[in-house]
Amino acid sequence: MQTTSLVPLDYKADTGSTNSRVPLVPSRAGIGRAITHSTTNSLAMIIVTRPDATEEQIDYIATRIRSWGLKAEISRGEMRVVIGVIGPEDKIREKPLGAFPGVESVTPVLKPYKLVSYEFRGTHSHVQIGDVVIGGREFVVMAGPCSVESESQVTTIAKEVRKAGARILRGGAFKPRTSPYSFQGLGKIGLQFLAEARRETGMPVITEVMDTKDLDLVCEYADCLQIGARNMQNFSLLREVGRTKLPVMLKRGMAATIKDLLMSAEYIVSEGNFNVLLCERGIRTFETMTRNTLDLNAVPVLKAETHLPVVVDPTHGIGLREFIPSMALAAVAAGADSIMVEVHNAPEQAKSDGEQALLPSDFEDLVGRVRSVAAAVGRAM
Amino acid sequence: MQTTSLVPLDYKADTGSTNSRVPLVPSRAGIGRAITHSTTNSLAMIIVTRPDATEEQIDYIATRIRSWGLKAEISRGEMRVVIGVIGPEDKIREKPLGAFPGVESVTPVLKPYKLVSYEFRGTHSHVQIGDVVIGGREFVVMAGPCSVESESQVTTIAKEVRKAGARILRGGAFKPRTSPYSFQGLGKIGLQFLAEARRETGMPVITEVMDTKDLDLVCEYADCLQIGARNMQNFSLLREVGRTKLPVMLKRGMAATIKDLLMSAEYIVSEGNFNVLLCERGIRTFETMTRNTLDLNAVPVLKAETHLPVVVDPTHGIGLREFIPSMALAAVAAGADSIMVEVHNAPEQAKSDGEQALLPSDFEDLVGRVRSVAAAVGRAM
Amino acid sequence: MQTTSLVPLDYKADTGSTNSRVPLVPSRAGIGRAITHSTTNSLAMIIVTRPDATEEQIDYIATRIRSWGLKAEISRGEMRVVIGVIGPEDKIREKPLGAFPGVESVTPVLKPYKLVSYEFRGTHSHVQIGDVVIGGREFVVMAGPCSVESESQVTTIAKEVRKAGARILRGGAFKPRTSPYSFQGLGKIGLQFLAEARRETGMPVITEVMDTKDLDLVCEYADCLQIGARNMQNFSLLREVGRTKLPVMLKRGMAATIKDLLMSAEYIVSEGNFNVLLCERGIRTFETMTRNTLDLNAVPVLKAETHLPVVVDPTHGIGLREFIPSMALAAVAAGADSIMVEVHNAPEQAKSDGEQALLPSDFEDLVGRVRSVAAAVGRAM
Amino acid sequence: MQTTSLVPLDYKADTGSTNSRVPLVPSRAGIGRAITHSTTNSLAMIIVTRPDATEEQIDYIATRIRSWGLKAEISRGEMRVVIGVIGPEDKIREKPLGAFPGVESVTPVLKPYKLVSYEFRGTHSHVQIGDVVIGGREFVVMAGPCSVESESQVTTIAKEVRKAGARILRGGAFKPRTSPYSFQGLGKIGLQFLAEARRETGMPVITEVMDTKDLDLVCEYADCLQIGARNMQNFSLLREVGRTKLPVMLKRGMAATIKDLLMSAEYIVSEGNFNVLLCERGIRTFETMTRNTLDLNAVPVLKAETHLPVVVDPTHGIGLREFIPSMALAAVAAGADSIMVEVHNAPEQAKSDGEQALLPSDFEDLVGRVRSVAAAVGRAM
Repeated sequence: MQTTSLVPLDYKADTGSTNSRVPLVPSRAGIGRAITHSTTNSLAMIIVTRPDATEEQIDYIATRIRSWGLKAEISRGEMRVVIGVIGPEDKIREKPLGAFPGVESVTPVLKPYKLVSYEFRGTHSHVQIGDVVIGGREFVVMAGPCSVESESQVTTIAKEVRKAGARILRGGAFKPRTSPYSFQGLGKIGLQFLAEARRETGMPVITEVMDTKDLDLVCEYADCLQIGARNMQNFSLLREVGRTKLPVMLKRGMAATIKDLLMSAEYIVSEGNFNVLLCERGIRTFETMTRNTLDLNAVPVLKAETHLPVVVDPTHGIGLREFIPSMALAAVAAGADSIMVEVHNAPEQAKSDGEQALLPSDFEDLVGRVRSVAAAVGRAM
Repeated sequence: MQTTSLVPLDYKADTGSTNSRVPLVPSRAGIGRAITHSTTNSLAMIIVTRPDATEEQIDYIATRIRSWGLKAEISRGEMRVVIGVIGPEDKIREKPLGAFPGVESVTPVLKPYKLVSYEFRGTHSHVQIGDVVIGGREFVVMAGPCSVESESQVTTIAKEVRKAGARILRGGAFKPRTSPYSFQGLGKIGLQFLAEARRETGMPVITEVMDTKDLDLVCEYADCLQIGARNMQNFSLLREVGRTKLPVMLKRGMAATIKDLLMSAEYIVSEGNFNVLLCERGIRTFETMTRNTLDLNAVPVLKAETHLPVVVDPTHGIGLREFIPSMALAAVAAGADSIMVEVHNAPEQAKSDGEQALLPSDFEDLVGRVRSVAAAVGRAM
Repeated sequence: MQTTSLVPLDYKADTGSTNSRVPLVPSRAGIGRAITHSTTNSLAMIIVTRPDATEEQIDYIATRIRSWGLKAEISRGEMRVVIGVIGPEDKIREKPLGAFPGVESVTPVLKPYKLVSYEFRGTHSHVQIGDVVIGGREFVVMAGPCSVESESQVTTIAKEVRKAGARILRGGAFKPRTSPYSFQGLGKIGLQFLAEARRETGMPVITEVMDTKDLDLVCEYADCLQIGARNMQNFSLLREVGRTKLPVMLKRGMAATIKDLLMSAEYIVSEGNFNVLLCERGIRTFETMTRNTLDLNAVPVLKAETHLPVVVDPTHGIGLREFIPSMALAAVAAGADSIMVEVHNAPEQAKSDGEQALLPSDFEDLVGRVRSVAAAVGRAM
Repeated sequence: MQTTSLVPLDYKADTGSTNSRVPLVPSRAGIGRAITHSTTNSLAMIIVTRPDATEEQIDYIATRIRSWGLKAEISRGEMRVVIGVIGPEDKIREKPLGAFPGVESVTPVLKPYKLVSYEFRGTHSHVQIGDVVIGGREFVVMAGPCSVESESQVTTIAKEVRKAGARILRGGAFKPRTSPYSFQGLGKIGLQFLAEARRETGMPVITEVMDTKDLDLVCEYADCLQIGARNMQNFSLLREVGRTKLPVMLKRGMAATIKDLLMSAEYIVSEGNFNVLLCERGIRTFETMTRNTLDLNAVPVLKAETHLPVVVDPTHGIGLREFIPSMALAAVAAGADSIMVEVHNAPEQAKSDGEQALLPSDFEDLVGRVRSVAAAVGRAM
């Protein structure tokens, strides 16, 4: 599905087929309508010319714009001329206006993302993973080990986190590791262990898919697909998961802006899969005392910019076990819909990221505190 | 006071003269003693040699270290040699060990900050501003306009924020502005307006000092000095405020690491003024949708690394009015001791930063929510 | 191939089978041998304990290390203990030493990359693309359009850049685009147009592969595979291109450190394909006046850290047409082996990145200046 | 030359006299001309409204704009309205337009810097330090120790670098150091040693001033004042050096954008001192293998945006001795007017930054290579 302009009236009903969507959060702008981003009379671009632009250059720009079937409204200042470009953005998006002689700047007026924008829905979406709904009033905790290491390991941890209050089980069978010499995950057998843990605990399972060639396999076992930070702009993979029927949690890349994250989500949604969760997991900055810099600014900004639910991963976001609980609580207070936390029953023996795994007892303590803060900000748990 | 090594036993009592310091927060490491950072037998540095370092180079390094009155312990691996340097760090800090031929890396073992380190006190400090204590169980809200613009403006806003629950009044009389053509603050008369607002509301006043030559003037009026982000490494100014008796709130620079912030605090404290608050106010990243990136990771890390109280400024930290409340709540949940929020009764007419000022009514709403989250994490208000 | 320890003597000869490698650059360390990174007696890690670590904790750490068949050498300072871990790094790399109670820091002594490290070869490698050698004395210019748009477009541009002095033709048939609504490349037919341009000009062709499922197709047409910045940590793709016999140019990710880039190259090389070029193409910073920040520091650092040739892409690195020549010249002076430049004969009509394409005449002028600077730093062209 | 607007013919002659410093700019706003940035008919701002902005909000914005004596030109798109604000920017710069209800974005059309902009002069400026001109055809090398340590040290090094080809002597008497326990410089006596070295070698001297209270003292000895990166936004200091008659080299802050750097230069120039050099010295990024990331992109961008000369400091820019020469050559090729390099005759004994000082012999070798690259890009030396 590649709707880029008018959305059929029944479209919203369609996208609602898999998930409930009672609007819990009042629209920030008081609007309840889907906004179509691109129609005949929309102002799409603002071009500002250079002080030394010649009349010929300005005429040439206007002529070219009109030759594409768009309108060009010219406002003349003393030093610069402003050209408003009006018309369907699809026609103009690809034009390299900045390459025209005499142009100083080109400012798009319309947002580059459409289907994921808050205005498209006018309300926040719910995404359902198994029987758990994310994006509603209930705050959801996902937990589990970084890597699946053995059946007993993942089942033991699953039971612990379930008991403590987690609703969704995480665990990696395919692991993206910086070094080719590090543990790369158990692959298919890891997926089977996750399925067994799901059978024993009833928790739906989220796990990462790293490559299009593994997608069918992962889909057989997962309740939710995870796209890792390093694959946030693996556009082939984004397209493919957009063609599945499974919910997808998309993690923000280490140097991705919020807009980049939304554009990557747009890839998935534009293929027809609206069940997308966005996950803030820390960006890379100059700081060296923490593994990453958890950007909680992204939480309220995303809640305003998109209808998709927002998950925070404090484990990777700060990367130091003793500080994870503080960041988990901060994520709740900032307005996240869910957190994902790594838990291990024997961190010293973990095959990956043992330094940042919480012990089950610490996790249980954390869930209690999460519940208190969630209540303080009006969320159930 | 320039103690860099042994601290007399009564030292803690001395520094306690202005502020109470009942240890509310249990020491993270279970220690209740001041740690002296530098004694005869401390391991101070670890030098690792290059694979191609010659025996002559290694001997030369060891000889030089010993010539400074330090011990050099050599451990030989097959490819590299590790030289542990033992002795008072004061003797070794200045030595350019990395400049020696054959050296691959030099890793300091001791932290470069001492007086501000958590271990130095073994408990968290309280800092008193007027009659308000920051760093204790009570969560403190500071609020007020970005700039002092007129007596009625600051007094009106002061009364509003006081009524809503703020305890300390902020307001800038000297304004650091990126452009020389922007409003630079009212200077002395602005300080007088602040003093008048204090008289009318009873709230102590925090205001920025930008230059050593203004310090005496600002000290006449302020209850707490603010050092802005752009002056975080104005070392002359840091030294001078360290010689005053006023509390100092030091804001983190836009590209300052947590360690840099602590080193700048060390400048102030090393002059004898222990009444220092550290303020996280957003760092600069690649993100363009927010003014800065509020680094809440810094909150739990600072609470563990230093005994000084931690303030968060969500106003500059995200810079967009509608998102400030979310970040304020997140700061409380992350463990901050205080937040500072900009409030203006007529943001459209503000002479600076109107875009990010809360209206008094929004601020009142925010304080209620801050109170709930504070209670959820065990803080009074 | 997963060699992680001893390398057979004839190994270098093996890897030399596809490319010549006369050592042009004298070894920086005076070594002419392959260094094995991991043997029985290598010091592999340095663990520093916390000031409050107990004797039990220290004993436990040492016991565990020895239980893995490694040696633990303990040096006691007054406040901290240093434990040197000696033995094959393969055994220790996966151990989460930082997760042990009482540990303050864990510092690896050995570099995490092996096969790509300069020491592994002791000389710089040459990589051959078609009949062009990169990494030797000759400085090589790659050029062509951002995207392949039509047969006449790519052939026309190919002839122009060939005439001006380019040796390798670039052009994208599969395009990674931030927006799903942007031109995504012509795919297979684009590859065929590239092949036709190669036939007409004799220039070997470099083009991007974005997904493992397209790899066989791209290999049919390309002389060199490009891995884009967004896929730098698409580890599945890295492994697969490592199993081909084609040279691979790996572009640095926008938030990748130099070490990350080398680790990703290690993925490719560890599969047996040593014909890897590293490409600096700009990192993401807070700067907004340029598209990216070209990190030329990476050039001399990479030339010292790895034997692989270094390419610089000034087009993406600064992203503004008028400034590309300056950065191209700076890349030559910094010591790069090659530059890649985007050229278009009608930038205003380009389907992607027209703003940053040089005109053929500007490119010709640039090549002349590149030749002068190359000569000034001792490179032929 | 790249004149982009009309500059009176005799203007260039005046400014060409090297350091004419007749205040060309009598007042900050009512300037004495090349480009008036702010006239009655200039388009100054573009306001875009939110999709949900009401007619009342749009009317209110237009009414307020007109009440300030400005024109508001309204262009209506289907979803958003664009309001062009026309009139003297001085009237509008301070208005918090973004704080108005219904506003989505506010884009300034005019650059915020004026006196330092290239268009203001229409040609590049020359700055004279002693008898050395920077910004002309000649490429200038500045060199000397990081800190002045003794008379013999600075004089010895001065003679060495003079002989090798340096034209200006650098050396710090007041040192900004991250730690209060590090060597802080010799102060006044250090200035006297510099003066002695100048007497013996004939080289003019550049040295840092850190605080307004030291300014008179430093002016007695220096030929050029240096403002360090950490003081780039110490606006009080910028104003004060702007009131002296000495040339000023302003170093870019670690997180400063190019625009920030230009705004800080505008502070100095707006006080009447046009003899300003801009120095790129590395920004802070996530990279840990180098001390900073030298942003050579800044060189061509600055040469286009401002008439002020551009200096590059490769020593701090990469911070590792062995890589400094490569970055120095890259700076020349990128179009810098000058480089500043730290040299020490006994780096192991240096009191600061010994790790990054070149030996005199290495420096001599470097100058020869700089001369070759300078010639290749059309610069004399």
